Amino acid sequence: MTKQELYHSILRKESFLCVGLDTDIKKIPKHLLQEDDPIFAFNQAIIDATQDYCVAYKLNLAFYESLGIKGQIALEKTADYISSKFPDIFIIADAKRGDIGNTSELYARAFFESADFDAVTVAPYMGEDSVKPFLVYPNKWVILLALTSNKGSQDFQFTTDANGERLFEKVLKKSQEWATDEQMMYVVGATQGKMLEEIRIIVPNHFLLVPGVGAQGGSLEEVARYGMNSQCGLLVNSSRQIIYADSTEQFAEAARREARNLQEEMSKYLQWITNAK
Amino acid sequence: MTKQELYHSILRKESFLCVGLDTDIKKIPKHLLQEDDPIFAFNQAIIDATQDYCVAYKLNLAFYESLGIKGQIALEKTADYISSKFPDIFIIADAKRGDIGNTSELYARAFFESADFDAVTVAPYMGEDSVKPFLVYPNKWVILLALTSNKGSQDFQFTTDANGERLFEKVLKKSQEWATDEQMMYVVGATQGKMLEEIRIIVPNHFLLVPGVGAQGGSLEEVARYGMNSQCGLLVNSSRQIIYADSTEQFAEAARREARNLQEEMSKYLQWITNAK
Repeated sequence: MTKQELYHSILRKESFLCVGLDTDIKKIPKHLLQEDDPIFAFNQAIIDATQDYCVAYKLNLAFYESLGIKGQIALEKTADYISSKFPDIFIIADAKRGDIGNTSELYARAFFESADFDAVTVAPYMGEDSVKPFLVYPNKWVILLALTSNKGSQDFQFTTDANGERLFEKVLKKSQEWATDEQMMYVVGATQGKMLEEIRIIVPNHFLLVPGVGAQGGSLEEVARYGMNSQCGLLVNSSRQIIYADSTEQFAEAARREARNLQEEMSKYLQWITNAK
Repeated sequence: MTKQELYHSILRKESFLCVGLDTDIKKIPKHLLQEDDPIFAFNQAIIDATQDYCVAYKLNLAFYESLGIKGQIALEKTADYISSKFPDIFIIADAKRGDIGNTSELYARAFFESADFDAVTVAPYMGEDSVKPFLVYPNKWVILLALTSNKGSQDFQFTTDANGERLFEKVLKKSQEWATDEQMMYVVGATQGKMLEEIRIIVPNHFLLVPGVGAQGGSLEEVARYGMNSQCGLLVNSSRQIIYADSTEQFAEAARREARNLQEEMSKYLQWITNAK
Protein backbone atom coordinates (compact mmCIF):
# COMPACT_ATOMS: atom_id res chain seq x y z
CA MET A 1 0.00 0.00 0.00
CA THR A 2 1.32 3.48 -0.79
CA LYS A 3 1.36 6.37 1.63
CA GLN A 4 -1.29 8.13 -0.44
CA GLU A 5 -3.56 5.10 -0.37
CA LEU A 6 -3.21 4.86 3.38
CA TYR A 7 -4.00 8.54 3.78
CA HIS A 8 -7.08 8.23 1.56
CA SER A 9 -8.27 5.29 3.57
CA ILE A 10 -7.88 7.39 6.73
CA LEU A 11 -9.90 10.23 5.24
CA ARG A 12 -12.62 7.94 3.95
CA LYS A 13 -13.07 6.06 7.19
CA GLU A 14 -12.36 9.15 9.33
CA SER A 15 -10.13 6.94 11.40
CA PHE A 16 -6.48 6.28 12.05
CA LEU A 17 -7.20 3.31 14.25
CA CYS A 18 -5.10 0.17 14.13
CA VAL A 19 -6.66 -2.81 15.88
CA GLY A 20 -4.11 -5.07 17.53
CA LEU A 21 -5.00 -8.72 17.09
CA ASP A 22 -3.03 -9.83 20.15
CA THR A 23 -5.13 -12.93 20.34
CA ASP A 24 -4.45 -15.06 23.41
CA ILE A 25 -6.10 -18.46 23.57
CA LYS A 26 -6.43 -17.97 27.33
CA LYS A 27 -8.46 -14.80 26.94
CA ILE A 28 -10.91 -15.46 24.12
CA PRO A 29 -14.55 -16.33 24.91
CA LYS A 30 -14.90 -19.92 26.06
CA HIS A 31 -17.52 -20.92 23.49
CA LEU A 32 -14.95 -20.42 20.71
CA LEU A 33 -12.74 -23.18 22.06
CA GLN A 34 -15.05 -25.70 20.35
CA GLU A 35 -14.11 -24.31 16.93
CA ASP A 36 -11.54 -26.08 14.77
CA ASP A 37 -9.31 -23.03 14.87
CA PRO A 38 -10.43 -20.88 17.82
CA ILE A 39 -7.81 -18.18 17.20
CA PHE A 40 -8.86 -17.66 13.61
CA ALA A 41 -12.56 -17.84 14.51
CA PHE A 42 -12.00 -15.09 17.06
CA ASN A 43 -9.95 -12.95 14.68
CA GLN A 44 -12.47 -13.31 11.88
CA ALA A 45 -15.31 -12.19 14.14
CA ILE A 46 -13.28 -9.24 15.44
CA ILE A 47 -12.26 -8.22 11.92
CA ASP A 48 -15.80 -8.40 10.55
CA ALA A 49 -17.04 -6.37 13.51
CA THR A 50 -14.36 -3.66 13.49
CA GLN A 51 -13.26 -3.22 9.87
CA ASP A 52 -15.63 -0.30 9.30
CA TYR A 53 -13.82 1.71 11.94
CA CYS A 54 -10.14 0.95 11.47
CA VAL A 55 -7.55 1.34 8.72
CA ALA A 56 -5.06 -1.24 9.95
CA TYR A 57 -4.67 -4.49 11.83
CA LYS A 58 -1.52 -5.38 13.70
CA LEU A 59 -0.73 -9.00 14.48
CA ASN A 60 1.82 -9.41 17.23
CA LEU A 61 3.63 -12.57 16.25
CA ALA A 62 4.45 -13.65 19.78
CA PHE A 63 0.81 -14.52 20.36
CA TYR A 64 0.82 -16.83 17.36
CA GLU A 65 4.29 -18.31 17.79
CA SER A 66 3.52 -19.31 21.36
CA LEU A 67 1.01 -21.79 19.92
CA GLY A 68 3.48 -23.50 17.61
CA ILE A 69 2.25 -24.69 14.26
CA LYS A 70 -1.43 -24.10 15.06
CA GLY A 71 -0.61 -20.48 15.76
CA GLN A 72 1.32 -20.16 12.52
CA ILE A 73 -1.69 -21.48 10.62
CA ALA A 74 -4.03 -19.05 12.38
CA LEU A 75 -1.63 -16.18 11.62
CA GLU A 76 -1.47 -16.91 7.91
CA LYS A 77 -5.21 -17.48 7.66
CA THR A 78 -5.87 -14.17 9.38
CA ALA A 79 -3.51 -12.20 7.13
CA ASP A 80 -5.01 -13.88 4.06
CA TYR A 81 -8.52 -13.16 5.25
CA ILE A 82 -7.85 -9.46 5.70
CA SER A 83 -5.91 -9.00 2.47
CA SER A 84 -8.47 -10.85 0.34
CA LYS A 85 -11.65 -9.52 1.92
CA PHE A 86 -10.56 -6.00 2.90
CA PRO A 87 -7.73 -5.09 0.53
CA ASP A 88 -7.77 -1.43 1.57
CA ILE A 89 -6.74 -2.32 5.12
CA PHE A 90 -3.08 -2.09 6.09
CA ILE A 91 -1.70 -5.25 7.74
CA ILE A 92 1.23 -5.09 10.11
CA ALA A 93 3.35 -8.02 11.24
CA ASP A 94 4.51 -6.86 14.66
CA ALA A 95 7.56 -9.05 14.64
CA LYS A 96 10.35 -6.75 15.87
CA ARG A 97 12.81 -8.66 13.71
CA GLY A 98 16.31 -7.68 12.65
CA ASP A 99 19.30 -9.83 11.81
CA ILE A 100 22.39 -9.77 9.58
CA GLY A 101 21.61 -8.94 5.98
CA ASN A 102 21.19 -12.35 4.39
CA THR A 103 19.02 -13.43 7.32
CA SER A 104 16.82 -10.32 7.31
CA GLU A 105 16.27 -11.11 3.63
CA LEU A 106 14.65 -14.37 4.69
CA TYR A 107 12.44 -12.62 7.23
CA ALA A 108 11.40 -10.22 4.49
CA ARG A 109 10.53 -13.19 2.31
CA ALA A 110 8.47 -14.66 5.18
CA PHE A 111 6.38 -11.54 5.69
CA PHE A 112 6.14 -10.10 2.20
CA GLU A 113 6.18 -13.21 -0.03
CA SER A 114 4.99 -16.25 1.96
CA ALA A 115 2.44 -14.01 3.68
CA ASP A 116 0.89 -10.79 2.43
CA PHE A 117 1.68 -8.25 5.12
CA ASP A 118 2.04 -4.57 4.22
CA ALA A 119 4.55 -3.82 6.93
CA VAL A 120 6.81 -5.40 9.49
CA THR A 121 8.18 -3.92 12.68
CA VAL A 122 11.98 -4.07 12.86
CA ALA A 123 14.39 -3.52 15.77
CA PRO A 124 17.23 -1.10 14.97
CA TYR A 125 20.04 -2.46 17.15
CA MET A 126 21.89 -4.20 14.31
CA GLY A 127 21.81 -1.17 12.01
CA GLU A 128 21.45 -0.52 8.32
CA ASP A 129 22.08 -3.92 6.76
CA SER A 130 19.58 -5.55 9.11
CA VAL A 131 16.87 -3.17 7.91
CA LYS A 132 17.56 -2.71 4.21
CA PRO A 133 16.47 -6.17 2.99
CA PHE A 134 12.92 -5.27 4.01
CA LEU A 135 13.01 -2.17 1.82
CA VAL A 136 13.38 -3.80 -1.59
CA TYR A 137 9.69 -4.64 -1.84
CA PRO A 138 7.64 -1.95 -3.59
CA ASN A 139 4.83 -0.54 -1.45
CA LYS A 140 5.88 -2.59 1.55
CA TRP A 141 6.93 -0.89 4.76
CA VAL A 142 9.40 -1.10 7.60
CA ILE A 143 8.15 0.21 10.91
CA LEU A 144 11.32 0.80 12.88
CA LEU A 145 11.34 0.76 16.68
CA ALA A 146 12.41 4.20 17.82
CA LEU A 147 10.87 4.93 21.20
CA THR A 148 8.94 2.12 22.81
CA SER A 149 6.27 2.52 25.47
CA ASN A 150 7.56 0.02 28.01
CA LYS A 151 9.49 0.75 31.20
CA GLY A 152 12.65 -0.84 29.75
CA SER A 153 12.78 1.85 27.06
CA GLN A 154 14.62 3.88 29.71
CA ASP A 155 17.53 1.43 29.77
CA PHE A 156 19.10 2.21 26.41
CA GLN A 157 16.83 4.35 24.23
CA PHE A 158 17.52 7.47 26.30
CA THR A 159 21.29 6.98 26.35
CA THR A 160 22.71 10.37 25.48
CA ASP A 161 25.81 10.75 23.35
CA ALA A 162 28.48 13.39 23.68
CA ASN A 163 26.39 15.82 21.58
CA GLY A 164 23.34 15.40 23.82
CA GLU A 165 21.52 13.24 21.28
CA ARG A 166 19.50 10.38 22.70
CA LEU A 167 19.67 6.94 21.09
CA PHE A 168 16.07 7.00 19.85
CA GLU A 169 16.76 10.36 18.19
CA LYS A 170 19.84 8.92 16.55
CA VAL A 171 17.74 6.03 15.26
CA LEU A 172 15.19 8.47 13.82
CA LYS A 173 17.90 10.54 12.13
CA LYS A 174 20.21 7.82 10.88
CA SER A 175 17.44 5.65 9.44
CA GLN A 176 16.27 8.48 7.21
CA GLU A 177 19.41 7.78 5.16
CA TRP A 178 18.02 4.31 4.44
CA ALA A 179 14.48 5.02 3.27
CA THR A 180 11.99 7.81 2.71
CA ASP A 181 8.67 8.36 4.44
CA GLU A 182 7.08 6.37 1.61
CA GLN A 183 8.61 3.17 2.97
CA MET A 184 9.41 3.71 6.57
CA MET A 185 7.35 4.46 9.67
CA TYR A 186 8.40 4.54 13.31
CA VAL A 187 7.10 2.96 16.46
CA VAL A 188 6.75 5.81 18.89
CA GLY A 189 5.27 4.82 22.20
CA ALA A 190 5.08 8.38 23.31
CA THR A 191 2.44 8.95 25.87
CA GLN A 192 3.52 12.50 26.56
CA GLY A 193 2.77 15.29 24.13
CA LYS A 194 6.09 17.00 24.78
CA MET A 195 8.01 13.99 23.51
CA LEU A 196 5.87 13.68 20.41
CA GLU A 197 6.49 17.33 19.63
CA GLU A 198 10.24 16.75 19.75
CA ILE A 199 9.93 13.67 17.57
CA ARG A 200 7.88 15.53 14.98
CA ILE A 201 10.75 17.98 14.55
CA ILE A 202 13.01 15.09 13.50
CA VAL A 203 10.46 13.20 11.39
CA PRO A 204 7.85 15.71 10.27
CA ASN A 205 6.43 13.65 7.42
CA HIS A 206 6.63 10.05 8.53
CA PHE A 207 3.79 7.94 9.77
CA LEU A 208 4.15 7.00 13.42
CA LEU A 209 2.70 3.82 14.88
CA VAL A 210 1.67 4.67 18.42
CA PRO A 211 1.07 1.64 20.62
CA GLY A 212 0.49 3.36 23.91
CA VAL A 213 -3.16 4.30 23.86
CA GLY A 214 -5.76 2.41 25.87
CA ALA A 215 -4.58 -0.36 28.19
CA GLN A 216 -0.99 0.92 27.89
CA GLY A 217 -2.42 4.26 28.92
CA GLY A 218 -1.85 7.32 26.74
CA SER A 219 -4.32 10.05 25.87
CA LEU A 220 -5.59 9.90 22.32
CA GLU A 221 -6.24 13.63 22.23
CA GLU A 222 -2.69 14.43 23.26
CA VAL A 223 -1.27 12.02 20.68
CA ALA A 224 -3.39 13.65 17.98
CA ARG A 225 -2.56 17.19 19.08
CA TYR A 226 1.20 16.72 19.10
CA GLY A 227 1.66 13.86 16.66
CA MET A 228 -0.60 14.59 13.73
CA ASN A 229 0.77 16.07 10.53
CA SER A 230 -0.89 17.33 7.35
CA GLN A 231 -1.43 13.77 6.10
CA CYS A 232 -2.48 12.51 9.50
CA GLY A 233 0.81 10.66 9.94
CA LEU A 234 -0.55 8.52 12.75
CA LEU A 235 -1.67 4.97 13.23
CA VAL A 236 -2.86 4.57 16.79
CA ASN A 237 -3.07 1.02 17.99
CA SER A 238 -5.49 -0.38 20.50
CA SER A 239 -5.58 -4.07 21.30
CA ARG A 240 -6.96 -5.32 24.59
CA GLN A 241 -9.43 -2.47 25.05
CA ILE A 242 -11.13 -3.53 21.82
CA ILE A 243 -10.67 -7.25 21.38
CA TYR A 244 -11.31 -8.16 25.02
CA ALA A 245 -14.06 -5.61 25.64
CA ASP A 246 -16.41 -8.48 26.47
CA SER A 247 -15.83 -12.17 27.10
CA THR A 248 -19.31 -13.50 26.31
CA GLU A 249 -20.91 -14.46 23.00
CA GLN A 250 -21.40 -10.72 22.43
CA PHE A 251 -17.64 -10.11 22.26
CA ALA A 252 -17.68 -8.99 18.62
CA GLU A 253 -20.43 -6.43 19.13
CA ALA A 254 -18.59 -5.08 22.15
CA ALA A 255 -15.40 -4.83 20.11
CA ARG A 256 -17.29 -3.00 17.39
CA ARG A 257 -18.62 -0.52 19.93
CA GLU A 258 -15.15 0.15 21.34
CA ALA A 259 -13.68 0.57 17.87
CA ARG A 260 -16.50 2.94 16.89
CA ASN A 261 -15.95 5.02 20.02
CA LEU A 262 -12.30 5.46 19.15
CA GLN A 263 -13.13 6.16 15.50
CA GLU A 264 -15.63 8.85 16.50
CA GLU A 265 -13.05 10.54 18.68
CA MET A 266 -10.48 10.29 15.89
CA SER A 267 -12.88 11.82 13.35
CA LYS A 268 -12.97 14.98 15.45
CA TYR A 269 -9.19 15.28 15.46
CA LEU A 270 -9.00 14.63 11.73
CA GLN A 271 -11.08 17.75 11.21
CA TRP A 272 -8.11 19.76 12.41
CA ILE A 273 -6.37 18.74 9.19
CA THR A 274 -9.27 19.34 6.84
CA ASN A 275 -10.07 22.66 8.53
CA ALA A 276 -6.47 23.75 8.11
CA LYS A 277 -6.52 23.10 4.36
CA MET B 1 21.30 -27.08 30.84
CA THR B 2 23.43 -25.58 33.59
CA LYS B 3 26.69 -23.75 33.02
CA GLN B 4 28.57 -26.63 34.68
CA GLU B 5 26.93 -29.18 32.40
CA LEU B 6 27.86 -27.13 29.36
CA TYR B 7 31.44 -26.81 30.55
CA HIS B 8 31.69 -30.55 31.16
CA SER B 9 30.33 -31.23 27.72
CA ILE B 10 33.03 -28.94 26.30
CA LEU B 11 35.77 -30.76 28.21
CA ARG B 12 34.48 -34.19 27.26
CA LYS B 13 34.15 -33.41 23.55
CA GLU B 14 37.21 -31.12 23.53
CA SER B 15 35.13 -28.71 21.54
CA PHE B 16 33.31 -25.41 21.91
CA LEU B 17 31.82 -25.63 18.48
CA CYS B 18 28.26 -24.57 17.76
CA VAL B 19 26.95 -25.70 14.38
CA GLY B 20 24.53 -23.22 12.83
CA LEU B 21 21.66 -24.99 11.12
CA ASP B 22 20.94 -22.09 8.77
CA THR B 23 19.23 -24.46 6.42
CA ASP B 24 18.18 -22.86 3.14
CA ILE B 25 16.01 -24.93 0.82
CA LYS B 26 17.83 -23.30 -2.10
CA LYS B 27 21.21 -24.54 -0.92
CA ILE B 28 20.70 -28.11 0.20
CA PRO B 29 21.71 -31.00 -2.08
CA LYS B 30 19.18 -31.54 -4.85
CA HIS B 31 18.54 -35.21 -4.13
CA LEU B 32 16.99 -34.26 -0.77
CA LEU B 33 14.20 -32.34 -2.46
CA GLN B 34 12.42 -35.64 -3.06
CA GLU B 35 12.07 -36.19 0.70
CA ASP B 36 8.79 -35.42 2.45
CA ASP B 37 10.52 -32.82 4.58
CA PRO B 38 13.80 -31.91 2.88
CA ILE B 39 14.82 -29.39 5.54
CA PHE B 40 14.47 -31.89 8.34
CA ALA B 41 16.13 -34.64 6.31
CA PHE B 42 19.11 -32.33 5.73
CA ASN B 43 19.29 -31.28 9.38
CA GLN B 44 19.04 -34.83 10.62
CA ALA B 45 21.92 -35.94 8.40
CA ILE B 46 24.04 -32.95 9.43
CA ILE B 47 23.32 -33.54 13.11
CA ASP B 48 24.13 -37.24 12.95
CA ALA B 49 27.35 -36.43 11.12
CA THR B 50 28.55 -33.57 13.35
CA GLN B 51 27.25 -34.30 16.87
CA ASP B 52 30.50 -35.94 17.93
CA TYR B 53 32.37 -32.70 17.34
CA CYS B 54 30.08 -29.96 18.61
CA VAL B 55 28.44 -29.01 21.88
CA ALA B 56 25.65 -26.84 20.49
CA TYR B 57 23.35 -26.33 17.54
CA LYS B 58 21.94 -22.94 16.65
CA LEU B 59 18.81 -22.68 14.52
CA ASN B 60 18.35 -19.27 12.97
CA LEU B 61 14.60 -18.87 12.86
CA ALA B 62 14.54 -16.73 9.73
CA PHE B 63 15.47 -19.74 7.63
CA TYR B 64 12.50 -21.68 8.95
CA GLU B 65 9.97 -18.84 9.05
CA SER B 66 10.64 -17.98 5.43
CA LEU B 67 9.08 -21.35 4.56
CA GLY B 68 5.84 -20.72 6.43
CA ILE B 69 4.19 -23.65 8.17
CA LYS B 70 6.47 -26.25 6.57
CA GLY B 71 9.45 -24.43 8.01
CA GLN B 72 7.85 -24.28 11.43
CA ILE B 73 7.32 -28.04 11.32
CA ALA B 74 10.93 -28.67 10.27
CA LEU B 75 12.14 -26.38 13.08
CA GLU B 76 10.18 -28.17 15.77
CA LYS B 77 11.14 -31.60 14.47
CA THR B 78 14.80 -30.61 14.45
CA ALA B 79 14.76 -29.26 18.01
CA ASP B 80 12.90 -32.38 19.18
CA TYR B 81 15.34 -34.63 17.38
CA ILE B 82 18.36 -33.05 19.03
CA SER B 83 16.88 -32.87 22.52
CA SER B 84 15.63 -36.45 22.50
CA LYS B 85 18.57 -38.11 20.79
CA PHE B 86 21.45 -35.95 22.04
CA PRO B 87 20.27 -34.50 25.36
CA ASP B 88 23.75 -33.23 26.27
CA ILE B 89 23.78 -30.84 23.31
CA PHE B 90 22.81 -27.21 23.87
CA ILE B 91 20.13 -25.95 21.46
CA ILE B 92 19.88 -22.26 20.61
CA ALA B 93 16.90 -20.56 18.99
CA ASP B 94 18.58 -17.69 17.16
CA ALA B 95 15.46 -15.56 17.14
CA LYS B 96 16.68 -12.11 18.21
CA ARG B 97 13.35 -11.47 19.87
CA GLY B 98 12.39 -8.81 22.38
CA ASP B 99 9.08 -7.13 23.03
CA ILE B 100 7.13 -5.57 25.90
CA GLY B 101 6.93 -7.76 28.97
CA ASN B 102 3.67 -9.63 28.46
CA THR B 103 4.64 -10.30 24.84
CA SER B 104 8.15 -11.50 25.61
CA GLU B 105 6.46 -13.92 28.02
CA LEU B 106 4.71 -15.48 25.04
CA TYR B 107 7.94 -15.75 23.08
CA ALA B 108 9.49 -17.44 26.11
CA ARG B 109 6.59 -19.88 26.15
CA ALA B 110 7.14 -20.57 22.44
CA PHE B 111 10.82 -21.42 22.81
CA PHE B 112 10.96 -22.98 26.26
CA GLU B 113 7.57 -24.72 26.58
CA SER B 114 6.13 -25.41 23.12
CA ALA B 115 9.64 -26.26 21.94
CA ASP B 116 12.58 -27.47 23.98
CA PHE B 117 15.33 -24.97 23.27
CA ASP B 118 18.00 -24.30 25.89
CA ALA B 119 18.54 -20.70 24.89
CA VAL B 120 17.13 -17.89 22.83
CA THR B 121 18.90 -14.87 21.41
CA VAL B 122 17.29 -11.58 22.47
CA ALA B 123 17.76 -8.02 21.21
CA PRO B 124 18.40 -5.49 23.97
CA TYR B 125 16.82 -2.34 22.50
CA MET B 126 13.64 -2.50 24.57
CA GLY B 127 15.47 -3.01 27.85
CA GLU B 128 14.94 -4.96 31.04
CA ASP B 129 11.26 -5.92 30.90
CA SER B 130 11.69 -7.26 27.37
CA VAL B 131 14.43 -9.63 28.56
CA LYS B 132 13.27 -10.71 32.03
CA PRO B 133 10.38 -12.99 30.97
CA PHE B 134 12.91 -15.31 29.37
CA LEU B 135 14.76 -15.61 32.68
CA VAL B 136 12.09 -17.29 34.78
CA TYR B 137 12.78 -20.73 33.35
CA PRO B 138 15.33 -22.75 35.37
CA ASN B 139 18.38 -23.78 33.36
CA LYS B 140 17.23 -21.88 30.29
CA TRP B 141 19.33 -19.09 28.88
CA VAL B 142 19.10 -15.67 27.30
CA ILE B 143 21.84 -14.86 24.82
CA LEU B 144 21.71 -11.10 24.57
CA LEU B 145 22.95 -9.26 21.49
CA ALA B 146 25.81 -7.05 22.58
CA LEU B 147 28.18 -6.58 19.68
CA THR B 148 27.13 -8.05 16.37
CA SER B 149 29.43 -8.97 13.53
CA ASN B 150 27.64 -7.18 10.69
CA LYS B 151 28.54 -3.85 9.13
CA GLY B 152 25.43 -2.20 10.60
CA SER B 153 26.78 -2.82 14.10
CA GLN B 154 28.62 0.47 13.54
CA ASP B 155 25.39 2.45 13.31
CA PHE B 156 24.28 2.32 16.94
CA GLN B 157 26.30 -0.19 18.95
CA PHE B 158 29.34 2.08 19.01
CA THR B 159 27.43 5.20 20.02
CA THR B 160 29.44 6.71 22.82
CA ASP B 161 27.79 8.41 25.77
CA ALA B 162 29.06 11.42 27.66
CA ASN B 163 31.26 9.15 29.84
CA GLY B 164 32.88 7.55 26.81
CA GLU B 165 30.94 4.32 27.19
CA ARG B 166 29.81 2.65 23.99
CA LEU B 167 26.29 1.28 23.70
CA PHE B 168 27.39 -2.36 23.52
CA GLU B 169 29.39 -1.84 26.71
CA LYS B 170 26.37 -0.33 28.38
CA VAL B 171 24.34 -3.37 27.32
CA LEU B 172 26.96 -5.70 28.81
CA LYS B 173 27.04 -3.76 32.09
CA LYS B 174 23.38 -2.97 32.57
CA SER B 175 22.19 -6.49 31.75
CA GLN B 176 24.31 -7.96 34.53
CA GLU B 177 21.75 -6.42 36.89
CA TRP B 178 19.13 -8.72 35.37
CA ALA B 179 20.76 -12.13 35.45
CA THR B 180 23.96 -13.91 36.41
CA ASP B 181 26.37 -15.78 34.17
CA GLU B 182 24.37 -18.91 34.98
CA GLN B 183 21.49 -17.66 32.84
CA MET B 184 22.85 -15.11 30.43
CA MET B 185 25.35 -15.22 27.62
CA TYR B 186 26.21 -12.55 25.06
CA VAL B 187 26.46 -12.48 21.30
CA VAL B 188 29.85 -10.99 20.60
CA GLY B 189 30.69 -10.85 16.94
CA ALA B 190 34.18 -9.72 17.69
CA THR B 191 36.60 -10.64 15.02
CA GLN B 192 39.39 -8.61 16.54
CA GLY B 193 41.25 -9.80 19.58
CA LYS B 194 41.57 -6.30 20.99
CA MET B 195 37.81 -5.93 21.22
CA LEU B 196 37.38 -9.32 22.87
CA GLU B 197 39.96 -8.37 25.45
CA GLU B 198 37.98 -5.25 26.32
CA ILE B 199 34.77 -7.23 26.51
CA ARG B 200 36.32 -9.82 28.82
CA ILE B 201 37.09 -7.06 31.30
CA ILE B 202 33.37 -6.27 31.52
CA VAL B 203 32.08 -9.86 31.47
CA PRO B 204 34.92 -12.08 32.72
CA ASN B 205 32.76 -15.11 33.57
CA HIS B 206 30.01 -15.16 30.96
CA PHE B 207 29.79 -17.43 28.02
CA LEU B 208 30.07 -15.59 24.72
CA LEU B 209 28.45 -16.80 21.53
CA VAL B 210 30.78 -15.79 18.72
CA PRO B 211 29.18 -15.91 15.29
CA GLY B 212 31.98 -14.44 13.26
CA VAL B 213 34.26 -17.38 12.50
CA GLY B 214 34.40 -19.01 9.11
CA ALA B 215 32.33 -17.49 6.31
CA GLN B 216 31.83 -14.33 8.39
CA GLY B 217 35.55 -14.29 8.70
CA GLY B 218 37.24 -14.19 12.10
CA SER B 219 40.27 -16.13 13.27
CA LEU B 220 39.47 -18.96 15.66
CA GLU B 221 42.85 -18.74 17.31
CA GLU B 222 42.45 -15.05 18.05
CA VAL B 223 38.95 -15.61 19.45
CA ALA B 224 40.29 -18.37 21.71
CA ARG B 225 43.33 -16.37 22.78
CA TYR B 226 41.42 -13.27 23.82
CA GLY B 227 37.99 -14.65 24.57
CA MET B 228 38.53 -17.84 26.54
CA ASN B 229 38.17 -17.88 30.31
CA SER B 230 38.82 -20.56 32.91
CA GLN B 231 35.60 -22.40 32.04
CA CYS B 232 36.11 -21.90 28.33
CA GLY B 233 33.33 -19.30 28.17
CA LEU B 234 33.04 -19.55 24.41
CA LEU B 235 30.65 -21.05 21.94
CA VAL B 236 31.97 -20.43 18.47
CA ASN B 237 29.45 -20.81 15.73
CA SER B 238 30.10 -21.96 12.21
CA SER B 239 27.28 -22.46 9.76
CA ARG B 240 27.89 -22.32 6.02
CA GLN B 241 31.46 -23.59 6.20
CA ILE B 242 30.17 -26.81 7.74
CA ILE B 243 26.68 -27.43 6.45
CA TYR B 244 27.38 -26.44 2.85
CA ALA B 245 30.87 -27.94 2.65
CA ASP B 246 29.66 -30.14 -0.20
CA SER B 247 26.50 -30.17 -2.27
CA THR B 248 26.52 -33.79 -3.42
CA GLU B 249 25.25 -36.93 -1.74
CA GLN B 250 28.44 -36.81 0.34
CA PHE B 251 27.37 -33.57 2.03
CA ALA B 252 27.10 -35.10 5.50
CA GLU B 253 30.56 -36.64 5.40
CA ALA B 254 31.98 -33.34 4.24
CA ALA B 255 30.21 -31.55 7.07
CA ARG B 256 31.61 -34.07 9.52
CA ARG B 257 35.12 -33.42 8.21
CA GLU B 258 34.75 -29.65 8.55
CA ALA B 259 33.35 -29.98 12.06
CA ARG B 260 36.15 -32.31 13.04
CA ASN B 261 38.77 -29.91 11.70
CA LEU B 262 37.36 -27.13 13.84
CA GLN B 263 37.06 -29.44 16.85
CA GLU B 264 40.70 -30.49 16.49
CA GLU B 265 41.82 -26.90 16.40
CA MET B 266 39.61 -26.12 19.41
CA SER B 267 41.03 -29.04 21.40
CA LYS B 268 44.46 -27.41 21.19
CA TYR B 269 43.17 -24.14 22.58
CA LEU B 270 41.30 -25.93 25.36
CA GLN B 271 44.63 -27.28 26.60
CA TRP B 272 45.52 -23.71 27.60
CA ILE B 273 42.85 -24.03 30.28
CA THR B 274 43.75 -27.49 31.49
CA ASN B 275 47.46 -26.64 31.46
CA ALA B 276 46.79 -23.55 33.54
CA LYS B 277 45.00 -25.55 36.25
